[in-house]
Amino acid sequence: MSATHRRIVLASRPAAEPSVDNFRLETVPVPTAGPGEVLVRNHYLSLDPYMRGRMSTAKSYAPPQPLDEVMIGGTVGEVVASNHPGFKPGDAVAGFGGWQEYSVVGAAGLPMLQKVDTRQVPLSAYLGPVGMPGITAWFGLSKIIEPKPGETVVVSAAAGAVGSVVGQLARSRGCRAVGIAGGRDKCDYVVKELGFDACIDYKAAADAAALDALLADAVPNGIDGYFENVGGITLDVVLNRMNAFGRIAVCGMIAGYNGEPVPIRNPTVILRSRLKMQGFIVFENPAIVPWAISELSAQVASGRLKYRETIAQGLENAPEAFLGLLKGRNLGKQLVRLV
Amino acid sequence: MSATHRRIVLASRPAAEPSVDNFRLETVPVPTAGPGEVLVRNHYLSLDPYMRGRMSTAKSYAPPQPLDEVMIGGTVGEVVASNHPGFKPGDAVAGFGGWQEYSVVGAAGLPMLQKVDTRQVPLSAYLGPVGMPGITAWFGLSKIIEPKPGETVVVSAAAGAVGSVVGQLARSRGCRAVGIAGGRDKCDYVVKELGFDACIDYKAAADAAALDALLADAVPNGIDGYFENVGGITLDVVLNRMNAFGRIAVCGMIAGYNGEPVPIRNPTVILRSRLKMQGFIVFENPAIVPWAISELSAQVASGRLKYRETIAQGLENAPEAFLGLLKGRNLGKQLVRLV
Repeated sequence: MSATHRRIVLASRPAAEPSVDNFRLETVPVPTAGPGEVLVRNHYLSLDPYMRGRMSTAKSYAPPQPLDEVMIGGTVGEVVASNHPGFKPGDAVAGFGGWQEYSVVGAAGLPMLQKVDTRQVPLSAYLGPVGMPGITAWFGLSKIIEPKPGETVVVSAAAGAVGSVVGQLARSRGCRAVGIAGGRDKCDYVVKELGFDACIDYKAAADAAALDALLADAVPNGIDGYFENVGGITLDVVLNRMNAFGRIAVCGMIAGYNGEPVPIRNPTVILRSRLKMQGFIVFENPAIVPWAISELSAQVASGRLKYRETIAQGLENAPEAFLGLLKGRNLGKQLVRLV
Repeated sequence: MSATHRRIVLASRPAAEPSVDNFRLETVPVPTAGPGEVLVRNHYLSLDPYMRGRMSTAKSYAPPQPLDEVMIGGTVGEVVASNHPGFKPGDAVAGFGGWQEYSVVGAAGLPMLQKVDTRQVPLSAYLGPVGMPGITAWFGLSKIIEPKPGETVVVSAAAGAVGSVVGQLARSRGCRAVGIAGGRDKCDYVVKELGFDACIDYKAAADAAALDALLADAVPNGIDGYFENVGGITLDVVLNRMNAFGRIAVCGMIAGYNGEPVPIRNPTVILRSRLKMQGFIVFENPAIVPWAISELSAQVASGRLKYRETIAQGLENAPEAFLGLLKGRNLGKQLVRLV
C-alpha cells in the first residue's frame, strides 16, 4: 500500500502538567501485514488516566512510554488484512493499537487482540463498560470490596468510565451506591441516569470539612466499601467515615499524577477501623476477565448498565481530549473517533 | 477481709504527652469474692501501647478508660478465693485485672479469665510471647502478611514484645527477617540474641534518606511483608521499598498516639506496587487464639522463641514504666511485678 495514515508519538516528557507540546502528529505510510500478522483499521481510541503515568520515567508498574514512538492505547476497529488464520477482514476486534489510524498486530500483540461480538453490544463499548474500565470496576468491586447486600459503597470519579460501572454494579448487588463527582451536571447524571442513591459534588465543598458534611448526609450508615479513583483530600474525608472492617480498592490516584505526592493525613484510621486498603492493576488478573465480560456485556445488552461517551473527532484532537480527561472535563468514557 | 491493697486510677486525660500526674495511686480494702466470683492476686501487670489510646476520648475501636476508675490492663496471677466451680485457690490465671494488686472477677470478666499451664512456660510469658503480644504477632504475620519461604519480612519496634516475636516467627517460616529498632543495643539484641538477619537503628539515620539507605542495604531483594508497629517516617520509607503485591499488617501507629496525625506522604505507592495494607485488632479474632498459643507455647518451652522482659517492681512504679514504654525505653516486654 502506498496510502498514508496518521499517528501520534510522545515528543517529550512533561516536567509537571502535560501539554499538547508533549505530543507530535506524524503522517507515515500505512504499514503492511507481514507473515502471521494482522492489519487493523482503528475506529476508536481509548484515552485513560494511566497514560499520564507512562509519559513519565518515574518508577511504575509498567515501563515508560518510549520517546518518538507511537503512544500506547486501547483501540477497537476492523481487520482489513490478515495473514493469520484466526482473523479475517471484516472481523471486529479490540486490542492495543495505540494512537494511530492503522496498526499491524504481530506475535507480540496477538494475544491481546480479541474478536468481539457487536450484535448486541456496540463496538465502542468494548473500550468502556465491557472493556478495560468496566473490567476494572468489576474486579475492584467483586474481588477487593466484596460488598454484601445492604452495605454502602462509595466511588470517586463516579461519572467516569470506571466509577459509573462501580456504582451500578454495587446497586445490582443490593448496596447503597454513593458517588463523588465534580459539578452539578455530573452528579445529576450519576443519580438520575445511572441510578446511584446519591452523589456528592466535591466542587461545591469549600474545604475538607464541607466535603465531610456533604458525605455525612449521603452515608447515614457509614461506608463499608470505597472504590478509590482520585486520592487526595477525598480519600482523607472518606477514610474518616469508613465503618469497621471497611475495604478500599485503590484503582487510581489521579491527584498525584503530576508529580506532587498527596499524603494520607491520618493513616491511624486504618488501624482504628481495621481497614483493608489494596491497590490493584486489572491487567494482572486475566483469569477474571471472562467472568467480568459475561456479566458486563449481558447488562449492557439488556440496557440495565448505562454509560455515556465523550467522543473527540479525529486523531489530531487526541492530545487536547487527553488533557481534558486529566482535568475531568469528560462525562463518561473519553474516546477519539478515528474514522 | 480487712486488709488493704493498692490500685491506680486514671486521674485526668493528657492534653498531649501523658505524665505521671494523669494517674493516682489509691489504697483501698481488698475486695471479696461474691457468689460466682473469683478473687485473684495479680503477680504481674502488662503495660502496652494501646493503653495510651484508652486515656483519650478520641474515637477508637474501644471506649475510653473512665476517669477515677482502675486503669485497664492484662495481668497474670493466682486465684486466692473462688466461688466459681471452674477455679480453685492456687490456680495460675491470665486475665484483665487492671492496674491493681487484687481483682475480683465476676460474670463480665470470667470469659476472659484463663487458667494457664506454668509447668513449661513461666507465668509472666502469658503476658508476652504466649500472651496478647505474641498472639498479635502471630495473627498479623500468619493471617495478613502470609509470608512464603524466601520472602523478606520487615518489622518495626523489633525489640519490643510484639516485634521480637514477628521476626522470630518469620525466620521459622523460612523468611529473611529484618528489624527496625531505636539504638545500637536494641539492634544487637535483635540480631545476636533473637536471630534476625539484620536490624536497622533508626536513631542512627539523620533523615528519611539516611534511613532509606540503611534499609536498602538490609533488604537487597526488597520487602514482601511489613509488620507496622510505629507509623510515621518509618512507614513512608518502608513503603517505597515494598515489592509488588506486598502485604502490610498495621498493628500500631505509636507515632500518632499523642494527637498529631502523621501522614503517609506518598500513598500512590499502594497503587503502584499493588500493596495490601490492613489494620487489625487481635481481640477480634478469637478463633485463632488456640492455634497461636499452641505454636507459641511450644516454641517458648523448647527455648526456640526467645524473649526478654523489662520489669518494674511495685505498682507505684507503673506510671513511670508506662511513660518509658511510650518512649521506647524498655527492651522486650514491659511488666510490673506486683508481688
